[in-house]
This record gives sequence, C-alpha cells and structure tokens, in this order.
Amino acid sequence: MTDPIAPGGTIGILGGGQLGRMLSVAAARLGLKTHVFEPGANPPAGDVAHAVTTAEYDDATALEAFAASVDVITYEFENIPTAALDLLERHRPIRPGREALRVSQDRLTEKTFLSDLGLGVAPFAAVDSAEDMAQAIEMIGVPSILKTRRFGYDGKGQVRIDSRETAGSALDSLAGAPAILEGMVDFTSEISVIGARSSRGDVAAFDPGMNVHVGGILRTTTVPAPIPDSLRTDAVLLAGRILNALDYVGVMGVELFVTPAGLIVNEIAPRVHNSGHWTQNGCTVDQFEQHIRAVAGWPLGDGSRFADVQMENLIGDDVSKIPALAAEPDTALHLYGKAEARPGRKMGHVNRVQRDERAASG
Amino acid sequence: MTDPIAPGGTIGILGGGQLGRMLSVAAARLGLKTHVFEPGANPPAGDVAHAVTTAEYDDATALEAFAASVDVITYEFENIPTAALDLLERHRPIRPGREALRVSQDRLTEKTFLSDLGLGVAPFAAVDSAEDMAQAIEMIGVPSILKTRRFGYDGKGQVRIDSRETAGSALDSLAGAPAILEGMVDFTSEISVIGARSSRGDVAAFDPGMNVHVGGILRTTTVPAPIPDSLRTDAVLLAGRILNALDYVGVMGVELFVTPAGLIVNEIAPRVHNSGHWTQNGCTVDQFEQHIRAVAGWPLGDGSRFADVQMENLIGDDVSKIPALAAEPDTALHLYGKAEARPGRKMGHVNRVQRDERAASG
Repeated sequence: MTDPIAPGGTIGILGGGQLGRMLSVAAARLGLKTHVFEPGANPPAGDVAHAVTTAEYDDATALEAFAASVDVITYEFENIPTAALDLLERHRPIRPGREALRVSQDRLTEKTFLSDLGLGVAPFAAVDSAEDMAQAIEMIGVPSILKTRRFGYDGKGQVRIDSRETAGSALDSLAGAPAILEGMVDFTSEISVIGARSSRGDVAAFDPGMNVHVGGILRTTTVPAPIPDSLRTDAVLLAGRILNALDYVGVMGVELFVTPAGLIVNEIAPRVHNSGHWTQNGCTVDQFEQHIRAVAGWPLGDGSRFADVQMENLIGDDVSKIPALAAEPDTALHLYGKAEARPGRKMGHVNRVQRDERAASG
Repeated sequence: MTDPIAPGGTIGILGGGQLGRMLSVAAARLGLKTHVFEPGANPPAGDVAHAVTTAEYDDATALEAFAASVDVITYEFENIPTAALDLLERHRPIRPGREALRVSQDRLTEKTFLSDLGLGVAPFAAVDSAEDMAQAIEMIGVPSILKTRRFGYDGKGQVRIDSRETAGSALDSLAGAPAILEGMVDFTSEISVIGARSSRGDVAAFDPGMNVHVGGILRTTTVPAPIPDSLRTDAVLLAGRILNALDYVGVMGVELFVTPAGLIVNEIAPRVHNSGHWTQNGCTVDQFEQHIRAVAGWPLGDGSRFADVQMENLIGDDVSKIPALAAEPDTALHLYGKAEARPGRKMGHVNRVQRDERAASG
C-alpha cells in the first residue's frame, strides 16, 4: 500500500483505444491527468488525455520519458511486451501487477491458475505438437476448441474441432503457435462479473451481467442477469477469490459460463472490460472510475446498481444507426471517436436504461 | 437549422474553465472533438480537450485559426468581447446565438427583455448618474441592490443599499460603471431551471432545483426542489418562453425567486450552469451533453430525472475534504483539475445521490 495519488497527479495508460479513452475521462472527473502511451497514430484516448506519447513498445527512450512523467502505470490491454514492462517497472509501479498479466497473457497459465484455486474450468490440455494433439483429443474429445495460448481476442486465434479427422488441419492452421485444447462447455448462458480491489485490499464487484456474443464479439450485456441469487453470490465471491489470490489492484473482468453444475470460469481480463460498460449509466461510480480509484490508491467508490441496463455494442456499419439512436429515449450513446468503421471494429456502444417508474416520473 | 455535425467533428469552446472541461467530456462521449480557446495558461478544460489555443481575445490571427479548425463555436461564459464574436461569426456559427449574449451580458437589457416577455422581475431602474440614482431610489426604495450592468458574477460588482444616505457612496464604489438599481425581492426560496432548445426548435427542461447561496456563491442545489407541482410547471414553461423568444440553441440556466405571488426571474445565463451539475448523476443525458447535442444540431437527449440529488460545490479549502468525500457512499466526486485552491475558487463539486430503495438493492 502506498499514499493515494492526489488530484493533479498523472496516471500513465498503456494503450490508447476506447478503454483508455473512457479511463481518461474517469481520471479527469477525479482531478487526475492521464498520459497515454500508444504506437498507433490518432488513438481514441488521445482526444481526452492530457498527454499522448506515440512510440513503439521497444522504444526505451520513449518508455523512460513516459514513466518519468507519471505517478503510476496501468494498461487497457494485456498483451504488452514483457521487456517494456520490465523497463517501466523499474521506474513506476504497474497496477494491476505483473502477476495478473503473466497469468492472463497465457491461456494455459490462466486455466492452471484458476483450476489450482479450486474454480471450475473447461477440461484443457497443452498442445505443442501433433503428439500432444492426439493425446489431448483422446482425453477431451470432440467437439472441442483449439486456441493459441497467447494474443487471442474477440474470437481470433481459435478453431473449433468437430471431428477427430480435422484435428491435424486445425493444429496446422495455428502455424506452430503454442496452443491449448479446451473441451466445450454445455452452458445455458454466459455472464461476467466486473470485480475491483483497492490497494488496501478492499474488494467490490458490480452486479453480474449476461453476455451475448455474435461471431465471437460481444454484442450485448444485460443487467440484471437472469440467474438465481445463489449464482449471483457465487459469481461475486469467485471474483473476489481471484482478485485476492493475485493481490490484484484495479478492475478485472471475469467471464463465466452458467451450467447446470454451477459456474465455469471462461477467462479473466486484468483490466476494464467491454461487459462492464453498462456501469456508466447504471451506477454512481462506473468501472472506469473504479479502476482509476484503485490504481491511484483511493478508496473504491459506490458501484451499486440502480437501474436495469442493456448495453449494445456498435460494431462496424452500426454507426449508420447513430442518428436514430441519438433520438431514442432512455438511451445513452457512447462513441469512441474512431474515424473509420471497419467490419468488426468496435465504434461505440449504447446503454439502454430502464428505471423504476416511480423514480423516473418524480 | 443546419445538418448535424457528425462524429469526428469539432466543437470550438470559448473559455477553458470547469464548464468547458465538462462540455469537452460530454462531446467526447458523442464522438466529437473539442478545441478550447482560452487566454489563461493550463486551463482546466485543457486536460480533456482535443486541442487548446492559448491566446487573447484580441488576437485576430489566433481567433481565425481557431474558427477554421472547428465546425461550430460555443462558449462557457458570457462576457466575451464583442469584437472577437464579430470576427468569429464571419467564419462559423456561434451557438447559442448573439442575441442571447447581447441580452444576458447587460443586466438592464436582460431585465427589460424579460419584463417585455411578460415575466415577473424585480423592480429596476437604470443608473448612469447621481441624478438617476436619486430618482431610482425614490422609485424603488430601500433596501435595494446596485449592480454593474456588465461583468458581474458570483456576487461581484454588487452593493446592497440599506439606507438612502448610503446611496451616494454605493454609486461611487462602482467607479462610474453603468449600473442598475434593483429592488429586493421577498422570496421564500431560490430555484433554477436548466432549459435546452435544439436547432429544430425542440424544447426540454431539467427538473428545477433549489439553490442555496453563501456569500454570493452557489453552495448547494437540491432536486427535487420543495415546491408545488404548479410552480414546477410554471418554471419549465417560463424557461421555454425565454428560449423560444431568443430563438435559442443550447442549454440555458434560468435563476428564479419563489415568492408568495409566484416566480420572479432573477437572471439568465446563456450556457451550462453550476445549478445544473446535479444532472451528471441524476439523468441519463446531463446538461453538458444536452448543450453539445443542441449546438451540434443533434436531437436533445433524455434528461428526465431518475434520482434525488444534492449537489454541493467544493470551494477553496473544501479540497481538504476530498479524501473523506471519496469514501462516502452514494457520492459522486467531480474535480476540476485546478492546482491552486484560492478562497472562493470553485475546485469541484459532489453529487449526493438518493435512489429508490427497491432499485438500489436489485
């Protein structure tokens, strides 16, 4: 535990996408500045950050100047090169810590960690060779999913195996990348819980939401998730266990499968998470401010849910709906300032809010 | 009416204080950039604006470059030099328009405008000389308040006259500035209504709040204001009348006195207003986004109130309370990023939110 960063201080953010953008806005609300480090030009976070460094992650000079200008460093994505982290950590604390990154950067490490914690995960096996593949298929069966251990997101780096005959070609399609074979989980729904842990070890969690993915990309998150209270409690406790085990500081997204036998952890993301965007219009303190509070050493804020919300991502051509969405009642629009609407690109989201009638009419 | 400014467009903002800061954040949420023009160094809005021009209002070159870089121009304060507005208006639309500025920049013009609209105002008389003063005191009596016609804010440029003998020294204290004598209004409370009008002429208003001033500076705004529904309706209709009469585009703050004989208009501010800060945690679309929507030619958003809120300004030394406030439940902190906490300086505000119990426990 360290002293809180006082208003006027600066949070360094690795990555300048929409998550960094919304983190910057949350920091500003608390009187904190942000400095965004991002290799790409004109990053979405740049519009609202106090400072932007445009440089590659192997540019030691730029990294050192960045570190010197900030009080603490956080990140909006998990695949940051290790050498860059090593360098940065010599100058400033990185929150959430290195252990959370190490665990979540590698699907095999992550599954092993979760399993060792006693949490339910899909059956899994490491696959580094055709021989491993044969053994893994023998153990796990089909259908199953072969995934690269690193650098996967939004369904990329994954191939589904429906018959034993296609196992070889599936492995070939990953071009030798270290992989993991995972058994399919027979789930009734996917939910996620956004947990937070402060530098003092206080833990909080937002109400779990139900996620619907289309084509491997999150489409909607709905709160409250239509699950029994007992599962809601299980999800929150399970998130707390993960946060404590990692001595975590910040916000984490935990994706879960709801099955007849209980909850299965799909994956964890050591950062603010797309499935937590509903908190912007459903809570006094949203996931972005909660993360900033945690990494700045502040107490966690009030994240209790006060409304039913459905978050819907605006992907690619969905931007054509913006004029209509802007005129919808009970709808909050959140756009990321991206110029080009490529297919599959997250351009923004809307939160559709349903509030108690009595309060709304007041 | 003009075409809406599409995401990616830029709103120019004259003035870089906390209002410009919160307007910039609202613009970013809609995928719009902001360019802030501000003579002072390190303006609060600069932390979250896409671009900042630091220049004086008589710097024609800087003003022209600013205008060329934006799609529309708005402002966060009303005392902008006329010559600057003349220059800017040759290049880009200014919203709200010049008429609203002309009216609200001069207390005499404003009172005359409101009175001509048939709205209740305090008795008033122009005071340009000792002779005017004598006549005005004769007509209005004491106690009364002598105010400069221009450039007053937060109680500055005002002197209260309690006896006829002090009228002369009161006039002297204004050092020859054109003035207005206003009769005291015997009010039971002060309320304000934040109105909005789109470029299509649609009008909306946030629920009126009750204001408490201390030392001429707003201390708290509480919603709902403890007034009968009939007065609430009167306040909203009255605001609509003012907005329509000015062919207004944007958000306006209308300060009202509640008296046994009905509502008396104290003053209007052609901009987002301190007494509307509660909307950040009480509405899906707050006053800042409502203003940006209007000036960008978008439809107005959903400003219905869903919670009871008390806004409290953090002034000067109040910053010492920040650590305690950060840990308060149901409290949203909004800080302005100002380095130095001078007496009377607005450093931030908190919104204390009281929501429906049933919804909160969901």
